[in-house]
Amino acid sequence: MLIRCAAALLLLSAVAPALSAPRKPAPTPSEIVAAAPPTDWARIAPADLLVMELAPDAKGRARRVVIQLVPPPFSTAWTANIRKLVAAKWFDGIAVVRVQDNYVVQWGDADGDDKAKAKPLPPGLASTAEADYTAPATAAPDFVLPGRDPYARGTGAEKGWPVAFAKDRMWPVHCYGMVGVGRNVSPDAGTGAELYTVIGHAPRALDRNIALVGRVVEGIEHLSSLPRGTGNLGFYESAAERTAIRSVRIGNEVAGLPAFEAMVPTSASFAAYAKAKANRKDAFFIAPAGGVDVCALGVPLRRAK
Amino acid sequence: MLIRCAAALLLLSAVAPALSAPRKPAPTPSEIVAAAPPTDWARIAPADLLVMELAPDAKGRARRVVIQLVPPPFSTAWTANIRKLVAAKWFDGIAVVRVQDNYVVQWGDADGDDKAKAKPLPPGLASTAEADYTAPATAAPDFVLPGRDPYARGTGAEKGWPVAFAKDRMWPVHCYGMVGVGRNVSPDAGTGAELYTVIGHAPRALDRNIALVGRVVEGIEHLSSLPRGTGNLGFYESAAERTAIRSVRIGNEVAGLPAFEAMVPTSASFAAYAKAKANRKDAFFIAPAGGVDVCALGVPLRRAK
Repeated sequence: MLIRCAAALLLLSAVAPALSAPRKPAPTPSEIVAAAPPTDWARIAPADLLVMELAPDAKGRARRVVIQLVPPPFSTAWTANIRKLVAAKWFDGIAVVRVQDNYVVQWGDADGDDKAKAKPLPPGLASTAEADYTAPATAAPDFVLPGRDPYARGTGAEKGWPVAFAKDRMWPVHCYGMVGVGRNVSPDAGTGAELYTVIGHAPRALDRNIALVGRVVEGIEHLSSLPRGTGNLGFYESAAERTAIRSVRIGNEVAGLPAFEAMVPTSASFAAYAKAKANRKDAFFIAPAGGVDVCALGVPLRRAK
Repeated sequence: MLIRCAAALLLLSAVAPALSAPRKPAPTPSEIVAAAPPTDWARIAPADLLVMELAPDAKGRARRVVIQLVPPPFSTAWTANIRKLVAAKWFDGIAVVRVQDNYVVQWGDADGDDKAKAKPLPPGLASTAEADYTAPATAAPDFVLPGRDPYARGTGAEKGWPVAFAKDRMWPVHCYGMVGVGRNVSPDAGTGAELYTVIGHAPRALDRNIALVGRVVEGIEHLSSLPRGTGNLGFYESAAERTAIRSVRIGNEVAGLPAFEAMVPTSASFAAYAKAKANRKDAFFIAPAGGVDVCALGVPLRRAK
């Protein structure tokens, strides 16, 4: 009896500080992500990854950017083209040609607009169409984000990707790190040979106006910290300023590539993460917003443990 | 008569292509900004500017960042402190200590958390309070942005700054390039000696939870393109990685400083700009969003012509 009483006292003592504190801090979104069980994560197939090796930096350090291609039903003609371009090693030797602050980093053939000098594209690329910037949707996405969005009827996550939706269409959204297809003016929809990634505030006006084909899973800092171009729209004014792309390979062709995974938006962890993002009550915060936008929410990605 | 007829034909000829085209492209937001008359711009007082000179880059090029302090009624205790810190040349010799991708660049005293080594603050700094993260508001802001916002009752622009508002409070918002005050956990509200600027998607959850004191008017690329820190929260792990701040001066003490101006949110140009931003119908766009968020809108800034 004595021992049991002592144990009860210890328990009370351990609990008391939390009870008497003015507020017990809620877990941060990062803590919820870190505590998510393995079942709340989905492995990203290496066959859906592009491994882009930039030329080393000034100190000789490797710069690798890993990009996940968006799954069907999104942008399927463009992702098929990109797989063909990678298989043909077409991206090897092109370069980052544009870095516009708070907007995009773009890579492609610097001579692409000059028919006499442009690097020939491999045969068999599919034609692409504006109608496919969005996909048909017969149901709400896997996760519907509560709250208001300035750009769409609703937002959330589908197949592990941030999306927006209307009554019968759904589309990926231009969040930081998303990868899209450069194009000329409408109705040109781009081939997939000219790509960009977002390095600033989400340019959501581009949603439904351009094909989104992927997202940077690791190594975005090798693009986002590049010197900004001083030409119009952030294009580099001289070839010397460009960063060469050594190679782009599909993930399952790259020996030793780490495994990556995305949080499952239908999981309990994701629901808790989304709630915490919209209502920060952890120790640093005093005024929860009561909402969060789809790009500040995103979908947590990580190297598999 | 012959001459007048010929002139009429020329005019028709010039107009005809636009009339026969399927759609006459609307002006881009940039074109609206470029065409705004001088009366739709307000000069920024040099006395409200901070000129921060970073150490030159690896090629010896100067790196100047120009920051405008937010006007009353916003964050007045902090901006008063920052003026005192600048007058005491306190920022001279500190450094950029943190660069976290898609979040913030932060500068301050690297030894600030070590009482024995911290750089002494000048006397007379005001105490700051969480209640002043927002300001009382008895009316709507100068410009109210139509549409929905995930984080606040409404958004718009007040005194030339992007803001959000509730029934009786108003506050600046964490857009790309906004400058805020680093602090410890609540109820610490920071002095103004530790500052950061946003270099990613707007972290609007920080609104009403931290003091915003300014915005970068020119030179953000010298901060946003810095190498990312590899330590926790993007802090640099060694002193060698930091970028030194040579000096910070008030604008009217800097010889030859260009004049800067902000578009007036009550002007016709700003209304046209906001409408165009929310409904892109220029040549590149096919699907106008019908809305825009306060940070994608912003307030146009430029060097005075």
